[in-house]
Amino acid sequence: MNGPLRVVPLGGLGEIGLNLLLLEYGDTAIAVDCGVMFPDEQMLGIDVVIPDFTYLRSLGDRFRGIFLTHGHEDHIGALPYALAERDVPVFGTPLTLGFVRERLRERGMSATLTDYADRTHAIGPFTVEPLVMTHSIPDTVGLAIRTPVGTVVHTGDFKLDQTPLDGRPSDIGRLAELGTEGVLLLLSDSTNAERPGVTPSERTVGGQLDAIFRGAAGRVLVTTFSSHIHRMQQVIDCATRFKRRVALVGRSLVTHVGVARELGILHVPEGTLVDLGPAADLPRERVAYITAGSQAEPASALVRIAMDAHKQVKVAADDTVVLSSRVIPGNERAISSLVNHLYRRGARVHYDRTTAVHVSGHASQEELKMVMNLVRPQHFVPVHGEYRHLVRHIALAAQVGIPRERCHLMEDGDVLELDGQAATRGERVPAGRVFVDGKGLGDVEDLVLRDRRHLSADGLVLAVVALHPRTGDLVAGPDLVSHGVMAEESNPEVLQRAREAVLEAIGSINPESRTDPLEVKEQVRRALRRYFKRFDRRPVILPFVMEM
Amino acid sequence: MNGPLRVVPLGGLGEIGLNLLLLEYGDTAIAVDCGVMFPDEQMLGIDVVIPDFTYLRSLGDRFRGIFLTHGHEDHIGALPYALAERDVPVFGTPLTLGFVRERLRERGMSATLTDYADRTHAIGPFTVEPLVMTHSIPDTVGLAIRTPVGTVVHTGDFKLDQTPLDGRPSDIGRLAELGTEGVLLLLSDSTNAERPGVTPSERTVGGQLDAIFRGAAGRVLVTTFSSHIHRMQQVIDCATRFKRRVALVGRSLVTHVGVARELGILHVPEGTLVDLGPAADLPRERVAYITAGSQAEPASALVRIAMDAHKQVKVAADDTVVLSSRVIPGNERAISSLVNHLYRRGARVHYDRTTAVHVSGHASQEELKMVMNLVRPQHFVPVHGEYRHLVRHIALAAQVGIPRERCHLMEDGDVLELDGQAATRGERVPAGRVFVDGKGLGDVEDLVLRDRRHLSADGLVLAVVALHPRTGDLVAGPDLVSHGVMAEESNPEVLQRAREAVLEAIGSINPESRTDPLEVKEQVRRALRRYFKRFDRRPVILPFVMEM
Repeated sequence: MNGPLRVVPLGGLGEIGLNLLLLEYGDTAIAVDCGVMFPDEQMLGIDVVIPDFTYLRSLGDRFRGIFLTHGHEDHIGALPYALAERDVPVFGTPLTLGFVRERLRERGMSATLTDYADRTHAIGPFTVEPLVMTHSIPDTVGLAIRTPVGTVVHTGDFKLDQTPLDGRPSDIGRLAELGTEGVLLLLSDSTNAERPGVTPSERTVGGQLDAIFRGAAGRVLVTTFSSHIHRMQQVIDCATRFKRRVALVGRSLVTHVGVARELGILHVPEGTLVDLGPAADLPRERVAYITAGSQAEPASALVRIAMDAHKQVKVAADDTVVLSSRVIPGNERAISSLVNHLYRRGARVHYDRTTAVHVSGHASQEELKMVMNLVRPQHFVPVHGEYRHLVRHIALAAQVGIPRERCHLMEDGDVLELDGQAATRGERVPAGRVFVDGKGLGDVEDLVLRDRRHLSADGLVLAVVALHPRTGDLVAGPDLVSHGVMAEESNPEVLQRAREAVLEAIGSINPESRTDPLEVKEQVRRALRRYFKRFDRRPVILPFVMEM
Repeated sequence: MNGPLRVVPLGGLGEIGLNLLLLEYGDTAIAVDCGVMFPDEQMLGIDVVIPDFTYLRSLGDRFRGIFLTHGHEDHIGALPYALAERDVPVFGTPLTLGFVRERLRERGMSATLTDYADRTHAIGPFTVEPLVMTHSIPDTVGLAIRTPVGTVVHTGDFKLDQTPLDGRPSDIGRLAELGTEGVLLLLSDSTNAERPGVTPSERTVGGQLDAIFRGAAGRVLVTTFSSHIHRMQQVIDCATRFKRRVALVGRSLVTHVGVARELGILHVPEGTLVDLGPAADLPRERVAYITAGSQAEPASALVRIAMDAHKQVKVAADDTVVLSSRVIPGNERAISSLVNHLYRRGARVHYDRTTAVHVSGHASQEELKMVMNLVRPQHFVPVHGEYRHLVRHIALAAQVGIPRERCHLMEDGDVLELDGQAATRGERVPAGRVFVDGKGLGDVEDLVLRDRRHLSADGLVLAVVALHPRTGDLVAGPDLVSHGVMAEESNPEVLQRAREAVLEAIGSINPESRTDPLEVKEQVRRALRRYFKRFDRRPVILPFVMEM
């Protein structure tokens, strides 16, 4: 025996996103998921955050495969970076692999992708069986992983939706069987460990959407996450029922809808979809839009629509806008401002505060306790949550009788070693966030992974502008400071010309958007990125827009 | 007749805070409230935001008095700045005036303060009658203002708490009488216009606190707003009941408790309060703390306690922490991080997600509709809310039969003219936010009002540091850029020495706090403020802490 089994979370435990969990036994290591995290306001200028691969790299050819639970960005987004480190096989369900394939294709990459929806797969000492689970994206699975020291059950992200749109509820029966056979370790989703009761079914949103469509006079616009195929299905069903055609606004929406239709997961009657051009010519009560921008991202379709700055889609009095998505923490103010702008256009607006137009994809306390009761694990590790969620999840475990010493509160980089009897802590491994700047530049050369050292090597440019909060007039700046970008930066002319580029970019923003700091920030950033690209430099750009 | 009556909101309509509403008739203008707004993340380096007084100034000696509805900062905080413009009499209830008096005393100012709790007061054509209302601070009033063209009712901030702690429910009977007499205009609180039903009574929090105290093994710490006297009363009552002494942590808490006790509004049995030193020596189950820092402000008591960086107050395993306050939008991430840190200390934590330890002080939809039904105004203007709240409040008015053309959606700077028959819009007046930097420096000379022009004249200093997110080690920077601060700034030595001051400040932060960007930001800012004070300069300081 080459034990123990090592459980090594490299992301997702203690902070949100970045999900990446390693299981090691003997000379084999496999990963569950490989996700990104979206930058918060402390990380201006950063496009995306990926897990620290230092430890993964140190495993060398012992690292032999990645098993994906579902197709959300915080579970698959870092895959291209991981595969650039080491080209291991990737296992997923059809929709998950469909999304992965698109993501790789955009970057000119390929990989060995295996559909494991209905099969178990063995890699070295690990045999991995997918378990059907319901979540806010179709084709989600949990995992039962047989190891020489016992079975590991990983729920993935899940809820126990009894009336899912695809008619495939979470496989509670199989969880019970595994529990009867004996489970060494349960890893379970902690996202909603603070929420009492049971998470409502996705189908409850359909009733709300039906009422909204029924009462809608003008256009209807619905925004949701572009991967939320079942939510889109319900919007499309409503539109069809009320004789509206559907237009999609946003590149990733179009991509995801394409993938899901091709796989037969999203059902769109012929003649339902319409392009944006013809959609604008339809009578207002005959069209519905599904748009990106649920988090009020600065350059997103919905923000531009709300600012009356979108070329093809307008919102006017008596149109209806539905924000059918959760507010990701940190985005509250931006979304609140988006809603204010939509009201200024005269729209009727439905959002979490006013209408039950969104439900969570994560299990609440009663569901979490049920899963623990079914699986009856020897050991329990709460995953997928901030520290407080992990603490609350362990409190739930205590309620259903799992002894405290068998619950392990792990954070990223912690190591748990299981030999079938005892559980001990191993030495911590490097883990954390790595910042990537330069997403979406489109070719494989640009897929430059910039970790801390690279980042300092490429330097940073800081741009400060002060705008009048009402008129958007430039009050002070732009002031630029660059650090470590290029030898020429001591030449004042380089920064002077950069300053001019920023001024020009601000000048070209339409008047209404000029009072939106996020939009200005985005434009300043683009202008500087373009400018420095001339010198073949890609510094981290930190735009700072002050209202005064 | 010198009409019309002009209604001129200079703050509080369309954004949160800054409440300041003018009523003008003939040669007399009076103000209702005069508040500040707290800066958001777009306004780093700014201490406080006050309304634009340009229009107020233009009124000259026509401006003759300020009537305060209650003692919250967003209603009284800008008073010192307004009184510096023009020393007009100020009317308020005893607690409100008590808070105002403290605030003026700290700045070495005085003013003509008149208690109008039980009396009407006439100024020119206006006769102002206070109406008892319940809110999250005692001694709150609404106003009935008689004018030559009709009666104006202003609710102030309110809820219809049927079991308030002081036994004085909102004066619904008087609202009904006024409605019967006939009301020209109702101005009503829109904060919770999105919230269905009725806001729970303050007393419901007492039951939750009782259960928490009953089950608490170690210390109990409760944080709430320092002006929330009734919440503190309930904490003190619980502490007394469970034989704990009470220690206050935070300067403004101590001040507010002092004022409220002196007025007989807060009842603290002799021997209950204890200083921090002796409190630390008491058995853990014999002490309760009331602490500032409910919004996880960087330098606040509770944040320092959570980071284990408070000299006199510690939180350890099995202590209990109660966050008995709402999350002000924009602070979600900071508060979430605070909760994570408290859990790391081993504390039991109660907050809005887990326990009903807070209720709002603002009326929900059923209460708002009731007030409209009682007052039956000819015209209605929703106040105190973002644009979306004002829109929703008008939708409620429609439900109770106020015709749409008599509902006026006004934003700051809009003017409504009422002649008793018609309502027309006047020409807009200047309104908006003015930034103040340099709060709390303690003497009247420092009460420098820095509007946009002054701000640009004093210049700004931007400081960028990059820290490792786990270790808090300095990865890059400090980089400084100054703009318009002083002639010497072209001398590299000035900034070089400023850089050293920042380095030193970062070095003196304790290791755990060094991973907290907000704390680092605060320390960087203090160091630079101190440094530039040597040169008699007070630039706006924008610290920028990046994790990488």
